Amino acid sequence: MGRFILKQKKEIGLSPDALYFRGKKKIDHVLLRVIDFDANNLEENAINKVNEVLKYQKKETVTWFNIDGLHDEKIMEEIAIGFNFDNLILAGVMDTQARPKVQEYANCISLSIKMLQQDEATGSISVENLSLIITKKVLLTFQEKKGDVFEPVRERIRTQKKRIRNSGTDYLAFTLLDIVVDNYIYIISEFGDKIEGLEEKLLLNPNQSVIDQINSYKQELNYLRKNINPAKEMILALSKMESEYINEDTYVHFKELLDNISHATESTDNYREILSDQLNIYHTTMSTKLNDIMKFLTVFSVIFIPLTFIAGIYGTNFDVVPELHYKYSYFIMWGVIITVAIGMLIYFRKKKWF
Amino acid sequence: MGRFILKQKKEIGLSPDALYFRGKKKIDHVLLRVIDFDANNLEENAINKVNEVLKYQKKETVTWFNIDGLHDEKIMEEIAIGFNFDNLILAGVMDTQARPKVQEYANCISLSIKMLQQDEATGSISVENLSLIITKKVLLTFQEKKGDVFEPVRERIRTQKKRIRNSGTDYLAFTLLDIVVDNYIYIISEFGDKIEGLEEKLLLNPNQSVIDQINSYKQELNYLRKNINPAKEMILALSKMESEYINEDTYVHFKELLDNISHATESTDNYREILSDQLNIYHTTMSTKLNDIMKFLTVFSVIFIPLTFIAGIYGTNFDVVPELHYKYSYFIMWGVIITVAIGMLIYFRKKKWF
Amino acid sequence: MGRFILKQKKEIGLSPDALYFRGKKKIDHVLLRVIDFDANNLEENAINKVNEVLKYQKKETVTWFNIDGLHDEKIMEEIAIGFNFDNLILAGVMDTQARPKVQEYANCISLSIKMLQQDEATGSISVENLSLIITKKVLLTFQEKKGDVFEPVRERIRTQKKRIRNSGTDYLAFTLLDIVVDNYIYIISEFGDKIEGLEEKLLLNPNQSVIDQINSYKQELNYLRKNINPAKEMILALSKMESEYINEDTYVHFKELLDNISHATESTDNYREILSDQLNIYHTTMSTKLNDIMKFLTVFSVIFIPLTFIAGIYGTNFDVVPELHYKYSYFIMWGVIITVAIGMLIYFRKKKWF
Amino acid sequence: MGRFILKQKKEIGLSPDALYFRGKKKIDHVLLRVIDFDANNLEENAINKVNEVLKYQKKETVTWFNIDGLHDEKIMEEIAIGFNFDNLILAGVMDTQARPKVQEYANCISLSIKMLQQDEATGSISVENLSLIITKKVLLTFQEKKGDVFEPVRERIRTQKKRIRNSGTDYLAFTLLDIVVDNYIYIISEFGDKIEGLEEKLLLNPNQSVIDQINSYKQELNYLRKNINPAKEMILALSKMESEYINEDTYVHFKELLDNISHATESTDNYREILSDQLNIYHTTMSTKLNDIMKFLTVFSVIFIPLTFIAGIYGTNFDVVPELHYKYSYFIMWGVIITVAIGMLIYFRKKKWF
Amino acid sequence: MGRFILKQKKEIGLSPDALYFRGKKKIDHVLLRVIDFDANNLEENAINKVNEVLKYQKKETVTWFNIDGLHDEKIMEEIAIGFNFDNLILAGVMDTQARPKVQEYANCISLSIKMLQQDEATGSISVENLSLIITKKVLLTFQEKKGDVFEPVRERIRTQKKRIRNSGTDYLAFTLLDIVVDNYIYIISEFGDKIEGLEEKLLLNPNQSVIDQINSYKQELNYLRKNINPAKEMILALSKMESEYINEDTYVHFKELLDNISHATESTDNYREILSDQLNIYHTTMSTKLNDIMKFLTVFSVIFIPLTFIAGIYGTNFDVVPELHYKYSYFIMWGVIITVAIGMLIYFRKKKWF
Repeated sequence: MGRFILKQKKEIGLSPDALYFRGKKKIDHVLLRVIDFDANNLEENAINKVNEVLKYQKKETVTWFNIDGLHDEKIMEEIAIGFNFDNLILAGVMDTQARPKVQEYANCISLSIKMLQQDEATGSISVENLSLIITKKVLLTFQEKKGDVFEPVRERIRTQKKRIRNSGTDYLAFTLLDIVVDNYIYIISEFGDKIEGLEEKLLLNPNQSVIDQINSYKQELNYLRKNINPAKEMILALSKMESEYINEDTYVHFKELLDNISHATESTDNYREILSDQLNIYHTTMSTKLNDIMKFLTVFSVIFIPLTFIAGIYGTNFDVVPELHYKYSYFIMWGVIITVAIGMLIYFRKKKWF
Repeated sequence: MGRFILKQKKEIGLSPDALYFRGKKKIDHVLLRVIDFDANNLEENAINKVNEVLKYQKKETVTWFNIDGLHDEKIMEEIAIGFNFDNLILAGVMDTQARPKVQEYANCISLSIKMLQQDEATGSISVENLSLIITKKVLLTFQEKKGDVFEPVRERIRTQKKRIRNSGTDYLAFTLLDIVVDNYIYIISEFGDKIEGLEEKLLLNPNQSVIDQINSYKQELNYLRKNINPAKEMILALSKMESEYINEDTYVHFKELLDNISHATESTDNYREILSDQLNIYHTTMSTKLNDIMKFLTVFSVIFIPLTFIAGIYGTNFDVVPELHYKYSYFIMWGVIITVAIGMLIYFRKKKWF
Repeated sequence: MGRFILKQKKEIGLSPDALYFRGKKKIDHVLLRVIDFDANNLEENAINKVNEVLKYQKKETVTWFNIDGLHDEKIMEEIAIGFNFDNLILAGVMDTQARPKVQEYANCISLSIKMLQQDEATGSISVENLSLIITKKVLLTFQEKKGDVFEPVRERIRTQKKRIRNSGTDYLAFTLLDIVVDNYIYIISEFGDKIEGLEEKLLLNPNQSVIDQINSYKQELNYLRKNINPAKEMILALSKMESEYINEDTYVHFKELLDNISHATESTDNYREILSDQLNIYHTTMSTKLNDIMKFLTVFSVIFIPLTFIAGIYGTNFDVVPELHYKYSYFIMWGVIITVAIGMLIYFRKKKWF
Repeated sequence: MGRFILKQKKEIGLSPDALYFRGKKKIDHVLLRVIDFDANNLEENAINKVNEVLKYQKKETVTWFNIDGLHDEKIMEEIAIGFNFDNLILAGVMDTQARPKVQEYANCISLSIKMLQQDEATGSISVENLSLIITKKVLLTFQEKKGDVFEPVRERIRTQKKRIRNSGTDYLAFTLLDIVVDNYIYIISEFGDKIEGLEEKLLLNPNQSVIDQINSYKQELNYLRKNINPAKEMILALSKMESEYINEDTYVHFKELLDNISHATESTDNYREILSDQLNIYHTTMSTKLNDIMKFLTVFSVIFIPLTFIAGIYGTNFDVVPELHYKYSYFIMWGVIITVAIGMLIYFRKKKWF
Repeated sequence: MGRFILKQKKEIGLSPDALYFRGKKKIDHVLLRVIDFDANNLEENAINKVNEVLKYQKKETVTWFNIDGLHDEKIMEEIAIGFNFDNLILAGVMDTQARPKVQEYANCISLSIKMLQQDEATGSISVENLSLIITKKVLLTFQEKKGDVFEPVRERIRTQKKRIRNSGTDYLAFTLLDIVVDNYIYIISEFGDKIEGLEEKLLLNPNQSVIDQINSYKQELNYLRKNINPAKEMILALSKMESEYINEDTYVHFKELLDNISHATESTDNYREILSDQLNIYHTTMSTKLNDIMKFLTVFSVIFIPLTFIAGIYGTNFDVVPELHYKYSYFIMWGVIITVAIGMLIYFRKKKWF
C-alpha cells in the first residue's frame, strides 16, 4: 500500500523545519556509533549521548558519526544544536518519504538517497532512507534501522592505511554512496538474470504463470526505477557542486559513481524493454495459437458438416424417397461423402490452412 | 464538460487588461480578511472595504490580505488603484481558466496555481484557481470561494513565534504554496493506494468493473497531471527568479517545494504506467482465456463431430446397408467410436491443448 | 487532399525572392484598408492604390494597413518598393503554404501564423495564412480573404482610448496574434467538449459510429497540432527577439501569448491522449464481449453436443441394438442426458464461465 | 538490401584519407562541367581535364564546377592537388554511404546531403549522394550520376541578372540545397496525397491490400526520415557556422532552408502518425467485425442446437417412447421448437447481440 | 545469463582503486607487444616484462604498447608504477563490466569502449572490453584476449609513411577506435540485410519461425544498442575534451568518428522500428486471417445448420407426421433446402462475407 508515494492528512501544513518523524519506526532505541581516524590512529565507539561526539568537531581527524533510528526528536534537536545545523536539515533527515536530494547549507552539505534491499524469498524490493551530512571534520549518517550494509567500509577503515585513511569526510561519504549504488547494480543484475531466464520458458511453455512473473518483475523494476532515477539526479548535482566541503580529488570518484548509476538506470530500462518484448512474444504466440486452433476447428467442422447433412437427408422417414431403394445407394452415398471430404481437404491445403 | 480547456466565444478579442471575470461564480459576496503580524504583534480582521487594508502598505509588519471571490470588478479596480497595480495583473487574477504562471512586475510578483480537491464520494477531482501577489509588505491571495485549506498556516502564525513570524511576505507565500503542493501529494497518494489495491482484484477476478475503475483513475490522473505539470514549471521559474521581493533565505524553501512537486509529477507518471500495465495484464488474461475457451470448444467439437457422423450414417434408411444386419455391428460401432475418441484425446494431449 | 503539406512540381527551383503566389486564390479583388490613429485622432479608409498609404510612414501616428488577397503580384511589388522591403519578405507573404515563422530584417519584422476556423457543420478545420510586417509606424497585415476576425480589435481602436490607442505597431500586432490564439483555444475547447461527451456514449453503447467519430476527431486534432505547434515556436522566438521594433512593455504581452498558446498545445495533447484512452476502452470492451460471446457459445455447444450424440446413437438402424428393447431405455436416456447436462453446468460454473 | 546502412568487410580499417570509392558506380565516365559568371558575363563549358578549371580560382568571377561520377580516383587526386584540399575532404566525397554533414576546413567548407527521387511506377525512393565544396571563388559539386535536377538553377544563372548573378559561391550553394529540399517536400507531398486518400478506402472496404499499401508507405516514410533528419541537422549546423566563406546576407536564406526542412520532417512525422492511426482504424474495424461475425454465429447456432437435439430425441428407435404415439406430438414438438426459438431471440435481443 | 549487467556480491564495497579483475578470464598468459615508430623508423617486439617498455616514455617516437589479458594484478601494478598512473586508472581497466567512458587524469587520458563481434553461426553478439590510455609518447591498449582486429592498423603503420607515421598517440588511438566503430557498422549492416530480407518472408508465409527470428533480432539489436549508445556518449565527450594529449588536428577525425557512430545508432533505431513494424504486419495479417477463417466457418455452419435441422425433423418417428406421406414431400424438402441455402448465400454476399 502506498509504495510509490505516501502522505498523511495530518502532515499537510506542517512547518518545514518541524522535527517531526515522517515514516515507519523500524527500531526501538536510537543507536549512536562513532569511528574517528586519521592515517595513523583509529578509535571506534558506541556512545550514549550526542554530547560525546561534539568534541570531534575540533579535532583534525576524520569522524564518522552514525545514527540508527530517526524517530527520537530529542536526539535530533541535540544534534541540531550541537553541530549548529538549521532545523530544516534535520527535519529533512526525519522525512523518510522525501526524494533523494542534495543541498548545500552554510556549514555543511546534506544529502539523502534510498538504500534498496531485495527480499530473497518473495523478490520484492524494500527501501530504506539514508541521509548524510558532510561537515568539515565529521560525517553524520542517518539510517532507519541497524544494518550491516556499511561493514565493508568499516573493515577498509580498520585494515587499509591508504586512500580512505588519508582522505576527508567527502571521500568517506563517497565510499558509502558507492556501496549503495553497488547494491542497486547487484539487485538489477539479479533481476536481469531471472528475466533473461524467462525467455526460454516463454518459448517452450507460454502460460499464465510466466505472465504473472513478467508482470511482477515489471512492477518491481518500476519501483526500482522510481528510487534510482532521483538518486542519479542527486549524484549528478553532487558531482557538479562546487563546495568547500568537497575536495578537488573526490570529483573523479563522484563521476565514476555517476557512471555506475547511469549504468544501473540504463540496465533497468533495458530490462523493462525486454519484459515488454516478452509480453509481445506471448501475445504473438497466443494469436498464432488461436489462429491454429480456429483453423483446426474450421477444417474439421467444415468437412463433417455436409457429410452429416447428407446422412441426415437419408435418415428422413418420407414415404417416397426414391434413392433409398436403389441397390447401390448406400455405397454411392459413401462415394459422394469421400469425394466431398477429399475435395475439401484439397481446398484447405490450397488455402494453406493445414 | 470542458474540464481541460474552456473558452467562450465572447471572450475572444477582449483587451488583456479588461477586468472581466472568466470563470464560474462560486460565492455570492466577496470576503476580505486581513492578518497583520510581526515577531511580537498579531492582528486579525475581516474588513468590508479595500480602503481599510491600504494603510498596511506603509507599516513595517507583514500583512496577509485574503480575498475570497473574484467576480466583483469594482473591488478588483479598487485593489488595482489602492496598490498601484497594472490592470493586467488583476485581469490575470480574474481569469480562473489561465495556466499557472509567475510574472514579475515593477512593484510586485504575481503568481497563480491550481488548488485541487478530491470529492470523497465520487473520487473526481475539482479545481480552484489561487492567485498570489507578493509585494514588499503585503501578500494578497485570491481564492474563488471561502475555504479552510490555509487554516494550518493561520494557526502557525497565531501560535508559533519562530520562522513564520520573523519572515517576510515571500516566506508566507511559500507556506501557502507548500500546502497546495502537499495537497497534490496527498491526493496522489490516496489514488496510489487505490490503484495499488486494484492489482489483486485484477488477478483474482478480472471483469469489466475493474476496467471501468482503471479507466476512471486514468482520466483523473490525466486531469491531475494537466494541473500539476504547469505548476511545476511555475515553481521552477519562481525558484530561479532573481527579485527584490524574494529574500535570499527563501530560495532553499522554493527548492524544496520544487523537489516535492517533482515527486508528485513523477508519482503521477508512475501510477499512469501502473494503470497501463494493469490494462495490459487484463488484455493478456482475456487473450489467454479466449484461447482456453476456444481450445475447449475445439477439443470437444472435434471429438464428437465424427462420432455423430458415424451414428448418422447408420441412421439412414437405405434398403441396402449391409453393416446394419451383422450381429455385432452395433458393438463394433461403439468400438470404433471409442477408438476414435481416444485417438483424438491423445492427439490433443500431444498438441498440449489440454 | 494534401492538407498537411503541399508542393507543386513547378515551384521547385524558383528563386526565393520571386513574387509568385503559392496557394489557392480565395478572393477576386485585393482589398486595401487603412486605419490610422493616435491617442486622440482616428481615421479609417478603404483605399484603391498602395500609393495612398505611403505617406503614413512619416507621420507620428500608428497605421494599420490591411491587405486582403495575396495573388496580385503587382500590388505586392508596389508595396515592396513603397516600403522599401526586400523582395524576399513579400515572396514569403505570398507563400501561403509556409510554416509560421518570424524573421527580423533591416527595416521591419516579418511574421506569419495560421488562422484556424472550424466549419460548424462538418467540424473540419480550415486554415488561412496571416502575415504581419511590423515597421516603426505602419503595421501591414496580409490575409488570404476578407474576414471579420479582427473586428473586435477595430472596435477597441474605435472606442477605447486607453492602451491600444497609446501603444505602437508592436502592441497592435500583439492584439491580432492574441485573437488568433484565442481562436485556437476556442476551437480546442469546442472539440474538448465533444470529446469529453463521447465518454458516456462509449460506455453505454460502443459501436462503429463512435469509433468513426473518435478517428475523425483524432485527425482534426492532428491537423490542429500541426498548425499550432510551429505557431508556438514562432511566438517563443518573437518573445525572445531583441528588436528596436518591439517596445520593452510589449514583452509581457508576448509572454502571456506564449502562456496561452502553451495552454492550447498542452490541451491538444491532453485530448489526443483522451482519444487514445477511449479507443483503448473500446478495444477492452470488444475483447471482453468477444470472450463473453465465445463462453456462451462454448457452454451451449458443449452441453448439447454429447446429448445430440446420444440421441444419434439410438437413431441407428442396426438390427441388434439391445438397449432399444428394454422398456425403460428411453427414460434412462433422458436421465443420462439430464445428468450430463447438469454435470456440465456445474463444471462451467466452477470455471466461472457464466 | 541494406538500404539503411551498408558496410563491407574490406572497408574496415581503411585510412580515413584513402581515396577509395565506397558506393555503386552509376556512370561510366566522369563528366566535368564549368559555369563561370559575374553580373555581366557568363561562360559555360564541358571540360576534359581538371587542369582547365584551376585558373578560375584566381578570377574574381563565381565558378561552379560540377563533377558527375565519383569513382575515378585519379581525377579526385588531381582535384585535391589542384585546389589544395586535404585528402580527407575528397575521401569523404567518395564515401556515398556517409551521413549528411558539414565541416569547415582551412580553405573551404565541405558538405554533403542526400538527393531523393521517387520512382513514379513503384513509389519507392532512390537516393543519391550530393557533395558540395565551397571555396572563395569556386563551388565544386559532386554527383553520382548525370542528372537534370539543377537545370532550373542553370536556367536562372543564364537568364536572371539579379540576385544569383550578383552573389557568391555560398548563395549558389544555397540555391542547390534549396532545390534538394524542395524535392524532399515534393516527394512528401505526393506521399501525403496518397496517404490521405487511403482514409476513404479504409472506411469503405478494409482489406489486406490497403494494409499492404499502408505498410509500404510506412517503410518509405521511414526511409525518407532516415535521409532527411540528418540533412536537417546539417543545415542547422550550416546556419550556425561562422565562416569567412559564407556571406552575412546568406544566413537569412539558410534560415529559410531550415524552416523548409523542418516543415518536411514535421510532415513526415505527421504522415507516420496518420498511417499508425489508419492501422488502428483497421484493427478496430477488424475487431468489431469479428465480434459481429461471432455474435451471428453464436445466435444462429444457439437457436438451432436445441431444436436439432429435440428432433434427434424423437428420431431414436426405442421400443418404448410414449410421446411418439400421441396424435398431436408432432405438432406439439413444432410448438416447443418455435417457442424455444422465439425465447432465444428475445434473450439475444435483450443482450443487444443483434 | 546477465548479458546486460553483472555484479557479484563480493564486489560490493571494494575500494575503487583495488586492482581486482572483474570479468571472465579469456586468455591464460598475458601478452605484451610493443610497436615503436616515427616517420622513418619502425620497431616491433613481443616483450616479457613491463620494464622493457618504460624506456620508450622518454623517446621522441610514438610507442604502441598492447596488453592482451587483464587478469594479472602484478603486471597491472608494474604498469601503474612504471608509468606513474593512479591505481584508479588500472582498476578501471580491470573492470570489464564498466560502461564505456573517457576520463582525463594528470598525466594521461583513459578511455574504454566495447568491441563487438558477431558469431557467424548463431548470429549472437559477443562483447570484449577495450581500454586505451593515451600518454604523451606511449599509447597503452588493453584487450581481454589476443585478437587480430587491429591488424589493419599495424599493416598501415608498417607500409604507409604518411599520416599515421607522422602523427602522435592520439591519432593512433583514433585509428583503433575507428576500427571498433567500423565493426559496429558492419555488424549492423549485416543485421540490416537480414532484417530487410524478412519482409518478403513475412508477406508470403507468415509463421511462428519468422516471428522467432524477429524476436531474436530484436534482442540482439537491444544488446547492440546497449553497448553502442554509451560509446557514442564517450566519443562525444572525447571530441569535446580540451586536453594537451590531443592534437588540434585530431579533432576533425573524432568528429568523423562521432558522425559514424551516430549513423550506427540511428540505423539501430531504424531497424528496431522496422522490426516493430514487421511484428505489426504479422499481427494485422493474423487478425485478417482469423476474420477470414471465422467468416468461412460461420457462412458454412449457418448454411448447413438449418438444413440439417429440417432433415432432422423428418427423421423423427412420430406416428403422425402428415408431411411424410405426401408423395412430393421429399422433393419439396429439397426445394426448401436449396432455397434456404441460396437465400443465405445472397445474404452473406450482401454482407461482403465472401
